[in-house]
Amino acid sequence: MNSQVAGNSRVLVGSGLLSELGARVLGSLPQRPRCALIADENVNRLYAAAAVESLRGAGINSQTFTLPAGERSKSLAHVGAICDQMSRAGLDRTSFVVALGGGVIGDLAGFIASVYHRGIPWVNVPTTVLAQVDSCIGGKTGLNTAAGKNLIGSFHQPALVVADVDTLQTLPRREWNEGFAEVIKHGIIRDAALFESLPKAAELEPANARDLVPLIRRNIEIKAAIVAADERESTGERALLNFGHTVGHAIETAAGYGEMLHGEAISLGIVAASDLSTRKAGLPDDERRAIVAMLNAFQLPTQLPRGISRDKIKEALRFDKKFERGEIRFVVTPKIGSAYVATDVTFADLEHAIDSL
Amino acid sequence: MNSQVAGNSRVLVGSGLLSELGARVLGSLPQRPRCALIADENVNRLYAAAAVESLRGAGINSQTFTLPAGERSKSLAHVGAICDQMSRAGLDRTSFVVALGGGVIGDLAGFIASVYHRGIPWVNVPTTVLAQVDSCIGGKTGLNTAAGKNLIGSFHQPALVVADVDTLQTLPRREWNEGFAEVIKHGIIRDAALFESLPKAAELEPANARDLVPLIRRNIEIKAAIVAADERESTGERALLNFGHTVGHAIETAAGYGEMLHGEAISLGIVAASDLSTRKAGLPDDERRAIVAMLNAFQLPTQLPRGISRDKIKEALRFDKKFERGEIRFVVTPKIGSAYVATDVTFADLEHAIDSL
Repeated sequence: MNSQVAGNSRVLVGSGLLSELGARVLGSLPQRPRCALIADENVNRLYAAAAVESLRGAGINSQTFTLPAGERSKSLAHVGAICDQMSRAGLDRTSFVVALGGGVIGDLAGFIASVYHRGIPWVNVPTTVLAQVDSCIGGKTGLNTAAGKNLIGSFHQPALVVADVDTLQTLPRREWNEGFAEVIKHGIIRDAALFESLPKAAELEPANARDLVPLIRRNIEIKAAIVAADERESTGERALLNFGHTVGHAIETAAGYGEMLHGEAISLGIVAASDLSTRKAGLPDDERRAIVAMLNAFQLPTQLPRGISRDKIKEALRFDKKFERGEIRFVVTPKIGSAYVATDVTFADLEHAIDSL
Repeated sequence: MNSQVAGNSRVLVGSGLLSELGARVLGSLPQRPRCALIADENVNRLYAAAAVESLRGAGINSQTFTLPAGERSKSLAHVGAICDQMSRAGLDRTSFVVALGGGVIGDLAGFIASVYHRGIPWVNVPTTVLAQVDSCIGGKTGLNTAAGKNLIGSFHQPALVVADVDTLQTLPRREWNEGFAEVIKHGIIRDAALFESLPKAAELEPANARDLVPLIRRNIEIKAAIVAADERESTGERALLNFGHTVGHAIETAAGYGEMLHGEAISLGIVAASDLSTRKAGLPDDERRAIVAMLNAFQLPTQLPRGISRDKIKEALRFDKKFERGEIRFVVTPKIGSAYVATDVTFADLEHAIDSL
């Protein structure tokens, strides 16, 4: 098992890592004897005991805090409730946070770590494909409010990321699949060879999760390199990671949180962005079709499901203040393996792409 | 009017600055045409119009958001409500925040700036003595939760601090006085000459606020130097600023938020810390008495008011987890003008000091 470095975080990817969690934490965060372990109810049932035992074996006392599974837990109300519970449990500024779960728990627990006693360290233990290949890297945390998804958040790099592929074995198939939307995206924007290797991965099932180790490592490398070039999203490099996300986010908003998995909405966003890339950036049509076929190979949606209104998607895009001011910056790919931010995409182009979904 | 530098912030102190706010902001935050102006209802009534007009004169569009005055506004619920209002008003990651008010508004608006769209810049316009001499420097923000004062917060340096002493003219006398508890503290821990100059300041009234400019500048220098040596409270230098605050915070907790002003509780904390300094650090008794006399000169409390239970204060200290583990680190002064962190203060010593109040 190799160790990668992403920003200020060490990243471990491998099998059997959960049982080594305590020892690994000692290496990265010495002299922090107490932690809050934050998990949703599903992951708590499956993996919290192993994490707690491993931490205890390293002399680290952990208190477990659980939340309902799902996007609704990313709220300020949950932040307040958990911080109060942490304080009453005696956790202080010398403590740290362990996030055990998928992207929702990483966003929430990372945010809590960034503000509890004005910031304490955290360790991310991602347990989904999506979290392991994408959201565990970059240090972004986020909460939803009535007015928007991730409207509130922080940049707070975890001290350590421990991605144990064994935890992927219990993923429902739909959640396994959704992670590959971001894998396909990474291939499209940065690595044609990765993209071409994906048909093999499409044959795997959660039971074969160990075979994913090299693929996860490569995805982490790609994302970490892009983030390192632009940690605070100031130069624009990081914007490339938004390929498929402009329309994807609008679909999530139109569908209502939780109706559609994030990766599924991104799959549709990738279809729309590929369509725009063909018309605006010269993406060859056979490459566009290869992208759609790859999404299908992972059973990801490539046509808008009935019941999600195209008008609502357009309305959500129109509400985006960037578009309102006419500054549409849209990530396109001229060729699988590369991407850039186009400035000549119009709102009419976006409407056309949505009508084609 | 001079410009000082504290951390990453430029700090302006003077008379008539509110009318220059727009021009000053343009100098520090060019190309940010929109801001959220956050104020409590009292300050909004007195000074928001001048701030808005000055910003407008510089081509900056501001939206005003008001909250009830007082510590209760430092809540996650208010953070969520204001962020939602900001989003609906079209403010985005290219916007910034202006905090117009005392320490509560600085803490709240600074926190909002640190998390809105994962962090946008902010400008602090402190309008109380306490905020101008102390809380506007250091970049600490904080919120209260059920379990504790400032349990949640962040480090987020304002891009610019604009301290207009004219805004002090409308302070109620009690709020004017409380600010001098921190001024006296700065003298005790770092600057005997400042301490000795204070009888002159004690003769001033809010109407003479302009005469405070040199004193405010000196206090900002002292705090900025201590913070610069230890921005994240890691080396211990910054702990010196806690002189009088261990017992002061316990008194605030025992009295209930809002019953006693922060500076008043700190005044009592300074009395207790001076008592302990005489017994543990060799502070001469005449200097201890000079400290008590100076607090009295500013009409600050030096004896515990009836109705605040000594047992509750001790209980609040006992709840402090640092003390629970026996690691009492208490700031003492061996001589006015210097301070250090003592490690030989016992809980019995603290109880004795509280009984003497």
